[in-house]
Amino acid sequence: MLPRKELFHLPEGMIYLDGNSLGPLPKAVPERVARTVEGEWGAHLITGWNVDDWMGQPSSVGDRVGRLIGAPAGSVVLGDTLSIKVYQALSAALEMVPDRKVILSDTGNFPTDLYMAEGLIRQIGQGHELRLVAPEGVAGAIDEDVAAVLLTHVDYRTGRMHDMSALTQKAHDAGAVMIWDLAHSAGAVPVDLAGCSCAFAVGCTYKYLNAGPGAPAFIYVRPDLQEAVSPALSGWLGHDAPFAFEQSYRPGAGIERMRVGTPPVLQIAALDAALDAWEGVDMADVRAASVELSEVFIAEVSARCPQLTLASPTDPAQRGSQVSFHFEQGYAAMQALIARGVIGDFRAPDIMRFGLTPLFIDEEDVLRAVDILEEVLSNRLWDSPEYLTKSRVT
Amino acid sequence: MLPRKELFHLPEGMIYLDGNSLGPLPKAVPERVARTVEGEWGAHLITGWNVDDWMGQPSSVGDRVGRLIGAPAGSVVLGDTLSIKVYQALSAALEMVPDRKVILSDTGNFPTDLYMAEGLIRQIGQGHELRLVAPEGVAGAIDEDVAAVLLTHVDYRTGRMHDMSALTQKAHDAGAVMIWDLAHSAGAVPVDLAGCSCAFAVGCTYKYLNAGPGAPAFIYVRPDLQEAVSPALSGWLGHDAPFAFEQSYRPGAGIERMRVGTPPVLQIAALDAALDAWEGVDMADVRAASVELSEVFIAEVSARCPQLTLASPTDPAQRGSQVSFHFEQGYAAMQALIARGVIGDFRAPDIMRFGLTPLFIDEEDVLRAVDILEEVLSNRLWDSPEYLTKSRVT
Repeated sequence: MLPRKELFHLPEGMIYLDGNSLGPLPKAVPERVARTVEGEWGAHLITGWNVDDWMGQPSSVGDRVGRLIGAPAGSVVLGDTLSIKVYQALSAALEMVPDRKVILSDTGNFPTDLYMAEGLIRQIGQGHELRLVAPEGVAGAIDEDVAAVLLTHVDYRTGRMHDMSALTQKAHDAGAVMIWDLAHSAGAVPVDLAGCSCAFAVGCTYKYLNAGPGAPAFIYVRPDLQEAVSPALSGWLGHDAPFAFEQSYRPGAGIERMRVGTPPVLQIAALDAALDAWEGVDMADVRAASVELSEVFIAEVSARCPQLTLASPTDPAQRGSQVSFHFEQGYAAMQALIARGVIGDFRAPDIMRFGLTPLFIDEEDVLRAVDILEEVLSNRLWDSPEYLTKSRVT
Repeated sequence: MLPRKELFHLPEGMIYLDGNSLGPLPKAVPERVARTVEGEWGAHLITGWNVDDWMGQPSSVGDRVGRLIGAPAGSVVLGDTLSIKVYQALSAALEMVPDRKVILSDTGNFPTDLYMAEGLIRQIGQGHELRLVAPEGVAGAIDEDVAAVLLTHVDYRTGRMHDMSALTQKAHDAGAVMIWDLAHSAGAVPVDLAGCSCAFAVGCTYKYLNAGPGAPAFIYVRPDLQEAVSPALSGWLGHDAPFAFEQSYRPGAGIERMRVGTPPVLQIAALDAALDAWEGVDMADVRAASVELSEVFIAEVSARCPQLTLASPTDPAQRGSQVSFHFEQGYAAMQALIARGVIGDFRAPDIMRFGLTPLFIDEEDVLRAVDILEEVLSNRLWDSPEYLTKSRVT
């Protein structure tokens, strides 16, 4: 069942352990994008909005993403970037608890979530505070001052995974609104949005979902809240009747109101094709394979690369689908590794990060990656001006 | 020099007068998109951000758009949708004149501009007012209460064109900030942003620039204002050092701060290739050809289709690159016309809209379109349940 390497274009000789940053190209994508460009846009021009259902795809393809994160049909819509979707979710959350002024997040959150929160606070000018605590301190910091808890489920640097269910419960017990950022979760670990009952979730599709650079983000709103949400960024495609061209905004039905402008049709086509690789895949199987690969990787690196210190939790239940290590010369070592065909990435100050993505990575890949890592480290192959000075890979 | 039909994929037998809504497929696009998908994403994976300069394209391709709207290098950046860019421009404008509370626009403005303004007003909660006047009343309504004037240069329904230079001057004389929406201007009529000295401009690239469905929007900020702008929607790619992953937002240098999230790489590739059709094109020549085509079209329709009344200004100097007519049965008539290969569109309540796009439309096309229009009208070919009930083309 897994891996499904035959569904991906994986360059010869490369071991790609960076699917947590940008997934590789699914083989179904080029033909599908070409068809959208030539067979739809080229042949149908303006009528593509109807005959090819470009207008409906943010919802219909959104539902396909929804299946992978435990969201019922009609609760996920695609569009914009993750930053914009964070802004929409947070703005809606704050409106739900107007008497509270604290947005709680953690210091490990991805910066754009914090920046968007800062910007929103500045914009609404009601004296909100962005309160950051250490990831392990979040549970203890949820109190009755907290309006919204904004957390990324899996830490982008360390892979540390929050307990989604317990923290959501804790937030609800305190009367706070829970928002989950699933950037490193969708397609990586099982997520049960309906079960955890959080109000909002957001995420991106270019990492584990392999939809390509600049792929659209998504937003989930719990079904019973949808009609009560006042969308910030009230664009025409979130209007109840966009083509009536009314002068005043009226929010659309349900999740549709979270749309803003014209959908990115080519990027959605790529996503739709990329999702084919997930057909028939059970996230529980992905998780089991991911844990197995991660445990092998950690055990081998620990045994053979004493220069590295594990930066991820040792308990797989507290770890997403990536493994990170501290190494003072991590930047140069990652460059040396990349030069030898093992692609991971580096995050300041000293983190070497590896994504374990069972759709296209198997144990043989992991063992070979450790061989090369060991060679780089034990022979100090990173200690070369070429690697020490090269400009940073994003 | 014009037209350059050979650069576009134009379906056999179709006369496409809807390039003002969605431009046709430039022949350079499929190969370029395929190269980006397979040769860049597929082959380079995460390193594409550097080796293929995906990260730099919002600015470098933005500069190519800038050339067509009189914007100097470094003053235009691509990303998001037009709605989002309107929000950013308006938010920044209001911050520049905190003591004023009126946003002035006109009743002909495209609804999303008004919706985004409404949403921003609600969000900042400082009692701003969105004041709408008839398009011809704008000049007289600019007074010292006005914080920002937000106008679409060319009216999406009628093609009526504002005097950009005079209104900008008027706004500046009153101490207001001027924002131009160039959705129906970029690639349609000459625009001299630097010359008119407006503070902000925004626009889209899927109309006259032919970049395809969901192509990115752009924003222009006058160079001397860039360092003073506090961007709303302060995402990580607008940060001064996105890859330092700092916890607090610091705006990036110049126009870069108007970026938000990950750029839509596939859509930008399509735009970049689409812009090749504009190489060596002088907007003055485009304008001259557009006026000529429009005058022929209006004269022929007036002479041969008395059922229609011109909805656009008769003076070409007050008209963009589209011509619109009122016709009570306009919706059905447009369907009948489309069924016969002449593609225009319909806007409520009764407007039949035709885009004249000299890059791929010539006088022969225009005359043939009028032949078919005359046939549809004089034989009441629109009077069929098929056309009267068909769901609306967007």
